[in-house]
Amino acid sequence: PEQKTRKYHRVQINGVGYLPEPPSSCIVRAVPSRPGAVPVLSGPCAQPPFIPPQGTRDHHPAQMTLLGRLLGTVVSCFKRHGAAAIDTPVMELREMLMEKYGDNSKLIYELQDQGGELLALRYDLTVPFARYLAMNKITNIKRYHIAKVYRRDSPAMTRGRYREFYQCDFDIAGQFDPMIPDAECLKIVHEILSELQIGDFLIKVNDRRILNGMFAICGIPESKLVTMCSTLDKLDKMPWEEVRSEMVGEKGLSPEAVDRVGEYVQLHGGMDLIEQLLQDPKLSQNKMAKEGLEDMKLLFEYLTLFGITGKVSFDLSLARGLDYYTGVIYEAVLLQQQNNHGEESVGVGSVAGGGRYDGLVGMFDPKGRKVPCVGVSIGIERIFSILEHRMKASREKVRTTETQVMVATPQKHLLSARLKLISELWDAGIKAEMMYRKDPKLLKQLQYCEDTGIPLVAIIGEEELKDGVVKLRDVATREEVNIPREELAAEIRRRLEP
Amino acid sequence: PEQKTRKYHRVQINGVGYLPEPPSSCIVRAVPSRPGAVPVLSGPCAQPPFIPPQGTRDHHPAQMTLLGRLLGTVVSCFKRHGAAAIDTPVMELREMLMEKYGDNSKLIYELQDQGGELLALRYDLTVPFARYLAMNKITNIKRYHIAKVYRRDSPAMTRGRYREFYQCDFDIAGQFDPMIPDAECLKIVHEILSELQIGDFLIKVNDRRILNGMFAICGIPESKLVTMCSTLDKLDKMPWEEVRSEMVGEKGLSPEAVDRVGEYVQLHGGMDLIEQLLQDPKLSQNKMAKEGLEDMKLLFEYLTLFGITGKVSFDLSLARGLDYYTGVIYEAVLLQQQNNHGEESVGVGSVAGGGRYDGLVGMFDPKGRKVPCVGVSIGIERIFSILEHRMKASREKVRTTETQVMVATPQKHLLSARLKLISELWDAGIKAEMMYRKDPKLLKQLQYCEDTGIPLVAIIGEEELKDGVVKLRDVATREEVNIPREELAAEIRRRLEP
Repeated sequence: PEQKTRKYHRVQINGVGYLPEPPSSCIVRAVPSRPGAVPVLSGPCAQPPFIPPQGTRDHHPAQMTLLGRLLGTVVSCFKRHGAAAIDTPVMELREMLMEKYGDNSKLIYELQDQGGELLALRYDLTVPFARYLAMNKITNIKRYHIAKVYRRDSPAMTRGRYREFYQCDFDIAGQFDPMIPDAECLKIVHEILSELQIGDFLIKVNDRRILNGMFAICGIPESKLVTMCSTLDKLDKMPWEEVRSEMVGEKGLSPEAVDRVGEYVQLHGGMDLIEQLLQDPKLSQNKMAKEGLEDMKLLFEYLTLFGITGKVSFDLSLARGLDYYTGVIYEAVLLQQQNNHGEESVGVGSVAGGGRYDGLVGMFDPKGRKVPCVGVSIGIERIFSILEHRMKASREKVRTTETQVMVATPQKHLLSARLKLISELWDAGIKAEMMYRKDPKLLKQLQYCEDTGIPLVAIIGEEELKDGVVKLRDVATREEVNIPREELAAEIRRRLEP
Repeated sequence: PEQKTRKYHRVQINGVGYLPEPPSSCIVRAVPSRPGAVPVLSGPCAQPPFIPPQGTRDHHPAQMTLLGRLLGTVVSCFKRHGAAAIDTPVMELREMLMEKYGDNSKLIYELQDQGGELLALRYDLTVPFARYLAMNKITNIKRYHIAKVYRRDSPAMTRGRYREFYQCDFDIAGQFDPMIPDAECLKIVHEILSELQIGDFLIKVNDRRILNGMFAICGIPESKLVTMCSTLDKLDKMPWEEVRSEMVGEKGLSPEAVDRVGEYVQLHGGMDLIEQLLQDPKLSQNKMAKEGLEDMKLLFEYLTLFGITGKVSFDLSLARGLDYYTGVIYEAVLLQQQNNHGEESVGVGSVAGGGRYDGLVGMFDPKGRKVPCVGVSIGIERIFSILEHRMKASREKVRTTETQVMVATPQKHLLSARLKLISELWDAGIKAEMMYRKDPKLLKQLQYCEDTGIPLVAIIGEEELKDGVVKLRDVATREEVNIPREELAAEIRRRLEP
């Protein structure tokens, strides 16, 4: 409970989800009972170790390489669908963020009042996007935004749940014919999850209008609709019995009404279920639910044309936690276990989610002008943590630099020659390194190439200087050829750029 | 002075440095006297407009395109020099950041105490890098880090000075032979500023040891050395007379000592000046200064081999504001005026800076183990604001998306055909868009291509469907050819990918 213990507790998060060596001056005090959790480290430390704040972590070069690949896949998909990039500040006026996230508002990081405006860190990219649209009077845009967001949540870092994490958002704003942009968002989720090859997945779909209609016919008062969605959203983390008792207890709903809800939320399927519910005597009488179901039918028609209904399930238990959704909502979950290290690995949870929010932009417009929006957010952190586990398990060695050639000298007193040659290569656009020593041993220079995966060595000695050549060595084959100095850059390019 | 006015004042920052249309409900209340400053806007507004916090701004798609190009140039230079990427959290433990930035510590954004750790937003990328090295016991790395940092400074946004801004840092950590990595940092500044073609520049170089030696022989007490550097650093913003009176007044130094300093800080030159100062009877007697001058000589030898001394000036007035520098320091400034819009445009100031900080890592290590470091930070925001001005002036139209083909239909009732075709193209990796309408007019679809720069249109009508072809239209030439449907993706690729 006390602050200090928690602080040391986190030393081991370096290297997502793995236990690095604890600081030598600390000792392991207690191994926690929850399986998969990390041991608690504690003093006596000479001074508090300086580590990243709870729920955040550094990214090492190998992680950055993996993250770069992942984000590259996401960005190229967003660009394939014609999106433009925007960026917004990490902090926003506090007032602007409030009352947009329901129960979750308490998770917003606030900045200290140091004189001036009251600020907070963004909780997601959707509310800033809506603010951006309203402020600039934009009524029509397809944009993506990849940036970090901040939540004072309880971190579960082995499962990729952090307090600072990337969101990768794609949104379509504008007044269009129903369900066409909505279907594209699902296509995007399908494309990205397929390309990333992280195993089998399922995209659950529902509609806030169907949920609200369902709640209404079950006898839930209208004032409780928003909170019902937040509570229902917990179904993926706790069993129905617990959700039920929260609804009856905390939320004060009648057990009968909640039990009627309980029957509906078990339903999931495809076009057949949509047709069935459109025939449901009670649900089809509700205007909201009927609209939602008809749009859901249209959505499934479009998804059929996209050829992706095999991985999409209309699921009445899907609610999504956030307040601002007004229409279709969706969430992608991974189906397979990712590894065999015990309970912790089962169910990495949602890896993408989103929906339609037609009212949010209007909240920021002085005249309340609405701009209909639909979007999707890719949960890159959870995917990252799965791929990182997999990479570590495969012991695949990742290159963290792209250096093409090492500039080396075989004798002493040749630093000037090395500096001059490497400078020529840099100016020719070649990625080149050299050792920061006056007289390094040739063996050390070659060893550095082996260690870091540099494929070529440009060796310049007395002989080569005299002849105006450079000895180009292939690190893998150990083959060496003399190349006229003025052709060196072209030769390196020829060998490495296919 | 009151909060509200300041708030509205900032509405016009949308579009860096330009005045967009103020909110229609606001009126211009006062035009400030300082030339180039933005007019103060004020009420009566229906409600406070939701805008980004003071000193921060959104990036629009065209700005993101420009920023992407800029960062691309910087990253490829860093990679050309063999650097690996790392990332650290935007927030750090408050305690970790304190006492690293001298007088500037008051500019650190602190987070509210919401229970848990006391946090603050990073002020630069250097201190988190040092923390990262110490925590992970890394003694040897060449890394780059591109991320936003936060300073509660008075913003001057037309000149690219913000409270949230990118830093692009390249650093070399490790124990090496003198001045080799230091010279590479200057080479990097030279490469990046040359490639970006932002006009003529000068890299000023000095050494903290030379400065300290100079202060000592001028009779400045040792306890004032650090604060002298902060004050001297203001020389690029105010004339010597003002700096002098701050030294004498606020800092309480003797006028005679300050005047002796005043003579030295006028000196700048190249190898000749280094040789001259090495002969200076007083300066060469000071151990620190002598070490610094000898290393400076070595540095200039290496820079000569790199062929970049033409743009490097050894300048005794250069001090750099930050506490942590221990050796060579440098700063690049643009020499030319960027445009002719008045005073504001003169001197965009420093566009890159850095130096050696051999003691910083030791401050985070429980045993005080030092890791020598040298690095450089590229001031991308100022360069961005210059290039953005230039782009606006040239009225060059920037494409903000990369869409290759528009999928269009010439008749009604063909939404399904469009959806099916675009889905095939996406799956083949083609960047494709369509209008989100059931039955858009062909003209509208073609107009969209003109507006957004999409080069090709894939038209699918009744006829094409029947024949199993797609009509591929070149937007520029208006030429149309029928392509067998199964060859469409390959044909688009052939036409656009050289």
